[in-house]
Amino acid sequence: MVDGTNTHKDMLGRSSLISVQQALDILLGLLVEIKVAAESIPLTEAFDRVLAEPINSPVNLPTEARSTMDGFAVRAVDTFGASQSAPCYLNITGEVKMGEAPQGEIPQGCCYKIPTGGLLPSGADGVVMLEQTVPVDETMIEIVKGVGSGVNVIAKGEDIGLGEEALAAGRLLRPQDVGLLAGLGVVEVKVFKRVRVGILATGDEIIAHTKVPKPGQIRNINSLALAGQVRRAGGVSIDYPIVSDQEDIFLPALKQAVQENDIVLFSGGSSVGVRDLGEQVIQALGPPGILVHGVTLKPGKPVLIGMSDTTPIFGLPGHPVSAMVCFDFFVRPAMESLSGQMRQAEIPSPWVEAKLTRNLNSAPGRRDVVRVKLMKENDIWYADPILGKSGSISTLSRAHGYFQIDEDSQGVTENTTIKVYLYI
Amino acid sequence: MVDGTNTHKDMLGRSSLISVQQALDILLGLLVEIKVAAESIPLTEAFDRVLAEPINSPVNLPTEARSTMDGFAVRAVDTFGASQSAPCYLNITGEVKMGEAPQGEIPQGCCYKIPTGGLLPSGADGVVMLEQTVPVDETMIEIVKGVGSGVNVIAKGEDIGLGEEALAAGRLLRPQDVGLLAGLGVVEVKVFKRVRVGILATGDEIIAHTKVPKPGQIRNINSLALAGQVRRAGGVSIDYPIVSDQEDIFLPALKQAVQENDIVLFSGGSSVGVRDLGEQVIQALGPPGILVHGVTLKPGKPVLIGMSDTTPIFGLPGHPVSAMVCFDFFVRPAMESLSGQMRQAEIPSPWVEAKLTRNLNSAPGRRDVVRVKLMKENDIWYADPILGKSGSISTLSRAHGYFQIDEDSQGVTENTTIKVYLYI
Repeated sequence: MVDGTNTHKDMLGRSSLISVQQALDILLGLLVEIKVAAESIPLTEAFDRVLAEPINSPVNLPTEARSTMDGFAVRAVDTFGASQSAPCYLNITGEVKMGEAPQGEIPQGCCYKIPTGGLLPSGADGVVMLEQTVPVDETMIEIVKGVGSGVNVIAKGEDIGLGEEALAAGRLLRPQDVGLLAGLGVVEVKVFKRVRVGILATGDEIIAHTKVPKPGQIRNINSLALAGQVRRAGGVSIDYPIVSDQEDIFLPALKQAVQENDIVLFSGGSSVGVRDLGEQVIQALGPPGILVHGVTLKPGKPVLIGMSDTTPIFGLPGHPVSAMVCFDFFVRPAMESLSGQMRQAEIPSPWVEAKLTRNLNSAPGRRDVVRVKLMKENDIWYADPILGKSGSISTLSRAHGYFQIDEDSQGVTENTTIKVYLYI
Repeated sequence: MVDGTNTHKDMLGRSSLISVQQALDILLGLLVEIKVAAESIPLTEAFDRVLAEPINSPVNLPTEARSTMDGFAVRAVDTFGASQSAPCYLNITGEVKMGEAPQGEIPQGCCYKIPTGGLLPSGADGVVMLEQTVPVDETMIEIVKGVGSGVNVIAKGEDIGLGEEALAAGRLLRPQDVGLLAGLGVVEVKVFKRVRVGILATGDEIIAHTKVPKPGQIRNINSLALAGQVRRAGGVSIDYPIVSDQEDIFLPALKQAVQENDIVLFSGGSSVGVRDLGEQVIQALGPPGILVHGVTLKPGKPVLIGMSDTTPIFGLPGHPVSAMVCFDFFVRPAMESLSGQMRQAEIPSPWVEAKLTRNLNSAPGRRDVVRVKLMKENDIWYADPILGKSGSISTLSRAHGYFQIDEDSQGVTENTTIKVYLYI
């Protein structure tokens, strides 16, 4: 359907395009209080999940003082002043074995052999490294450098103390975080459920990628590409059958997806008619209904953002590149907000600096997202813009990342250093 | 076991510590010709897998020329010179429907309505955007801006042409790459199998994280943390039971793991005795046997790298931070090499620039890996070094990333801008 309606104006004829930041503020503002539910899972399955509650250490780690070196556990005071020219001599009266509690107590003037990780025996408060000793015989060692109290020792609770906060709620569990929890003996953790994202493809011309298109038909690119994006963002994607862009078919399909997911995406034709239908069905599932219809972003201008009760709904442009850019700018932040994850606030997105290889113009008042190919020469990265149409998925596949030309810029000149956000 | 053997010297008494780069060169040099096997899988499961062969496009994409705008398909020559002051008028003699082949041919002086994505009808070679037209009545349109041939049209094969290379072998399939293949109608892809990494924990003092330690025992931190690292690097981790650090138990366990995996890691005590045992068992499984025993890296100095036939074996230090750093520097590159992935060559690792918050000294001739916490102030990132012991897993859990002080540096001063590689 083609008609003369210009959906970039509201009923009073004012332009309703808003900036990316304004759109995000509206969307994320409504999501502040909304989180997915939590569940308890074994620590062994918790990698890359998001903690739903803080974890305070149930133990001291280490549980007792340990040696951090191979050497001899000593009363530090017995070694004070020892040097190459004036060594001291200690009797070896015991040995600490790995995995066992040390026997007895070190008498004055004596020491125990101790391996790295061995428990400090009673009486000892320091460890002399093997390299600072000279064996005299089986029962005596020469110390050529004295140690102070606590040297070469990791104290009880030094890694983390009993009751101390080990990890805050909202932490995405990286390998080292799971390792820390294993060290504390945590067996089960309460995490947020993965965000479920329903993906619908709409359009009478769209067919499954496994089918052979008849004239005018197009294989479904967006569903699989968006499913990959959802997984990258830590979510679970639910693929729905392709639906016709007629209201009596599309509306019930979208309604079902909204009931079954935390977020719903649909993408389809970019024609005005299909876009109008998208607005109608989002509105029909409201309130709050349509929040954003169109942003000053290229590619991605015609994006629709709405909400049905607590479920964000995104009408993504049909052009694959536009759909993927809108995912980056709107869907991923919404997923992160719902997921309970605090990472976004803590860690910057990965980017590299690169020099732009040519001049690029941009319309002021619009944010341009420019796909680039990166090349390295003499240890400097160069970013070569990929200038294909937003319907061209191969341009995105050739890209290593993108950079942005902001709303207040009219363009960027060759050799400018730009920030390239990576498509990892 | 503690003894006086200094394993950092070879039989002639020369230091056998080598640099990180030398160790990598030896290891990766031996892996050049070794890749995991390939398998065919459905495209729907191919996300994040590595292509084992190039894919040439079996079709033109798009299959026929399409409109990239809502508007009117025209013979461009009929619109030449049209402007606001001198518009031209065309008869609307048809309409292109989505998903259908256009009927007939556009006669001279005529046009068809066309939606975004619609197939260009016979005779048409350009599209006038809706915004550049004024409706006269149902059968006639006023054109206020002429178009040239090819304008607002994506040509047949413009995204990618029949026979063109769509993706090279070795490509890690990102969301957009899977999307591209869907667009080409690729249903099945040949990918490299995921790299299998066997993980053993050794040491009489190590117990499962689910158990309560007796005095001297330590919960197993490294197995779970390393398993997470393996997954982050796209591999499959296989967890083996904790084994005693006695040769008659350790050697057969390691041998079995080598038979069942593409790479084997073991980590355990950091004492000299355990390290000697590690060298012995790697050597017993050779050739080629031990390749690297110790590197000028802190933390991570005592790492062992060996190989049994085509299977790399890594003896990682027992201290969790050291084990994780050695994973980053040695195991991940080995995994990427075996995986067939070409990404490392193409895309830089994610890092950010940050200002160091304090002076740090470093011994020349050694590479220091310093964990940092990132903080943002006035849009500038600051990196605060975390200076705990390498046995302290919580230091790694508090870190957002790390930076390196190179072998030829004696330290870095406060406020220096450093490159922080992110622990994402």
